Amino acid sequence: MSTAWTSRYAQRTKGIKSSAIRELLKFTQRPEVISFAGGLPASEVFPTERFRDACCKVLESQPHLALQYGATEGYEPLREMIARHIARYGIKAKSENVLITSGSQQALDLIGKLLINPGDRVLVEAPTYLGALQAFNVYGADYVSVPSDEDGLRFDLLENPLRSGPKFMYVLPNFQNPGGTTLSEGRRHELVLLADKYGIPIIEDDPYGQLRYEGEHLTPLVVLDRENLRRDNGYSIGNVIYLSTFSKTLAPGLRLGWIVAPPEVIAKLVQLKQGADLHTSTFVQMVAHEVARDNFLDEHVKLIRRVYRERRDVMFEALTQYFPPEVTWTRPKGGLFLWVTLPEGADAQKLFEAAVRENVAFVPGDCFYAPNGHQEEARRHMRLNFSAASPEQIREGIRRLSVAVKTQLEALHPIATRR
Amino acid sequence: MSTAWTSRYAQRTKGIKSSAIRELLKFTQRPEVISFAGGLPASEVFPTERFRDACCKVLESQPHLALQYGATEGYEPLREMIARHIARYGIKAKSENVLITSGSQQALDLIGKLLINPGDRVLVEAPTYLGALQAFNVYGADYVSVPSDEDGLRFDLLENPLRSGPKFMYVLPNFQNPGGTTLSEGRRHELVLLADKYGIPIIEDDPYGQLRYEGEHLTPLVVLDRENLRRDNGYSIGNVIYLSTFSKTLAPGLRLGWIVAPPEVIAKLVQLKQGADLHTSTFVQMVAHEVARDNFLDEHVKLIRRVYRERRDVMFEALTQYFPPEVTWTRPKGGLFLWVTLPEGADAQKLFEAAVRENVAFVPGDCFYAPNGHQEEARRHMRLNFSAASPEQIREGIRRLSVAVKTQLEALHPIATRR
Repeated sequence: MSTAWTSRYAQRTKGIKSSAIRELLKFTQRPEVISFAGGLPASEVFPTERFRDACCKVLESQPHLALQYGATEGYEPLREMIARHIARYGIKAKSENVLITSGSQQALDLIGKLLINPGDRVLVEAPTYLGALQAFNVYGADYVSVPSDEDGLRFDLLENPLRSGPKFMYVLPNFQNPGGTTLSEGRRHELVLLADKYGIPIIEDDPYGQLRYEGEHLTPLVVLDRENLRRDNGYSIGNVIYLSTFSKTLAPGLRLGWIVAPPEVIAKLVQLKQGADLHTSTFVQMVAHEVARDNFLDEHVKLIRRVYRERRDVMFEALTQYFPPEVTWTRPKGGLFLWVTLPEGADAQKLFEAAVRENVAFVPGDCFYAPNGHQEEARRHMRLNFSAASPEQIREGIRRLSVAVKTQLEALHPIATRR
Repeated sequence: MSTAWTSRYAQRTKGIKSSAIRELLKFTQRPEVISFAGGLPASEVFPTERFRDACCKVLESQPHLALQYGATEGYEPLREMIARHIARYGIKAKSENVLITSGSQQALDLIGKLLINPGDRVLVEAPTYLGALQAFNVYGADYVSVPSDEDGLRFDLLENPLRSGPKFMYVLPNFQNPGGTTLSEGRRHELVLLADKYGIPIIEDDPYGQLRYEGEHLTPLVVLDRENLRRDNGYSIGNVIYLSTFSKTLAPGLRLGWIVAPPEVIAKLVQLKQGADLHTSTFVQMVAHEVARDNFLDEHVKLIRRVYRERRDVMFEALTQYFPPEVTWTRPKGGLFLWVTLPEGADAQKLFEAAVRENVAFVPGDCFYAPNGHQEEARRHMRLNFSAASPEQIREGIRRLSVAVKTQLEALHPIATRR
């Protein structure tokens, strides 16, 4: 009937598979399942009433603006608010440096569109954010994967990959997805210097930076790039493009993210965004601005931090209580995820099938590696989300998961685990 | 400073220029200017109160769903509503045939991403929708342009271009942007048969179909394709992908459009949309559904038709009253635009500069032609929008524009116009 279509798909759909997370969603939506699989914020902390008031205010005071076509760059007061907001982290930006995107995912798509020709290499962490790989794959990206440890990207393994001439590097310095790790202050300094030395731009993706539960905020790469390299152009953006989002602080259902970049890069991105979706919903931008204003967002983020820190700590405790001692996990100081390492020979994909039978879900580690990026190592990991489930569910879910884990490890090393 | 970026832009940014319409916006926003340049719906007819009630209802009854991540395919009740709604035009579709997009512009981007490899030819009307050219250019499209007349795409000039093997053809059958013309019923039948004969899929873009001010609705290509070619797969979509939007019936500030396609095409588009923006705002989809339900949308569209018909008629009258007899224009039976043809030798770009001095704006015709698509002919046209300005502004604007037109024509043919 419509076989004519299949033969017509462009090269860029080659090898695109539906994301594992997407397929999981069907399963995890069953009420008996406790899911650590998604990256969902806790919906019970959404500031619903504030949203309702904001909608009323926007539609009463400026309905014609809110419901009409708007500028591709974004709603000017929101761009200004973002520029003010990121100044606290040392990022010097004017509204002209800020492009509003339809979620941070669109930022990744536009960056892929702007920078990647088929066959271009992108330097990524191993593991890295699945959605970035999906966005970049479409444009024919190849990858150079550099492993991370608890201090983020392994600096000692970085110089050769940089020398190989990647088009850019893509890094999540804070509470990385999926690793939960944070790039140390020392490595941040080294990274911007080395990137500058080899002329490799950095995409700094920072969706979770504000969700820190302990310790001090570390300096963004975009700021170190300016300070260490004395870029004095009035804004701090030289070799680094900085991305963030309202998805983890206000609500992901808005689909609101942003890009901070030099004006000439913003200008190109604006042209690409115009062809991609004209602009992000004016109404949603105005509502988000109205919700966030007068320091509400700052207060609200404090609440989120309290809730997520408790859930993280409950997960730490439950893991210690239930999991066998040969299993380890990262100790993220913020964000939404931790990363579990199973002993050699374990297989998280098979473990996932067993977990399903126990009514608990996670994402197997191999989803987070670029093609040819350490797939053997990848099998030994699972990503666990601690923001979406309640403390009680977390305890029970980790208990269920431990049953599946123990069963697999016993089959692997029958004698060792029987001790 | 950030010169590193410029050398890194991908091939697909080559030759991308900021759209003329975009640049015009700055000028047309000055209060003294009467603009026929944009494609803005009349903001005074936005159903503001209904929107406010809908926001409250959604945020009171289902806040956790509205503000959370959602399915890439879209909000299921909205997909079902769209499937029911298009059934009145004979389009048989289930919700699984409907993908919600971030405006109709995203539909064009996803179709370009799915179907266009660099150098692939796309068959377009000359003139055609500027935004489609912008979306397809990024993927390296070449074009075959086929002229239109008052009955739409010139069928007599179609067979050779089809034989040349374009990847697909892109057609706006109803009240075309910019031409204002409608593809006749006879040509519609011929078109789907010929497309099937040569195996060329059709993208049927129908943003304005509901805004018909006189005459009967004509059968969509997607329906004729099924009927004429006896496709009995339970839905009517075989060789045609159908696009539409809420931008012209509810509000463009929502950024809500949709694609109707066979399930296997939807599945591919869903994967591409996932990488592009994960999904369209859940909140906005739920609000639109709440606004449109219980036949409100149908009643509201009747109001829009009354308002726009009046404005169109006022523009017809003013053109007749003020414009010199050697200038002609199309007589659209619906939509937002009419298309003015100036005598040979005229130059709409220069006319635009003169119009600016009279504080009136339009879009010069050459913006709407694919590269190498009849640029000589293109210079003789202007697109005029009649939905955004009030009847009084339309009369005054056409009077001002006529001053610029007469001045240019006098310079062209000093004797003829002095009679």
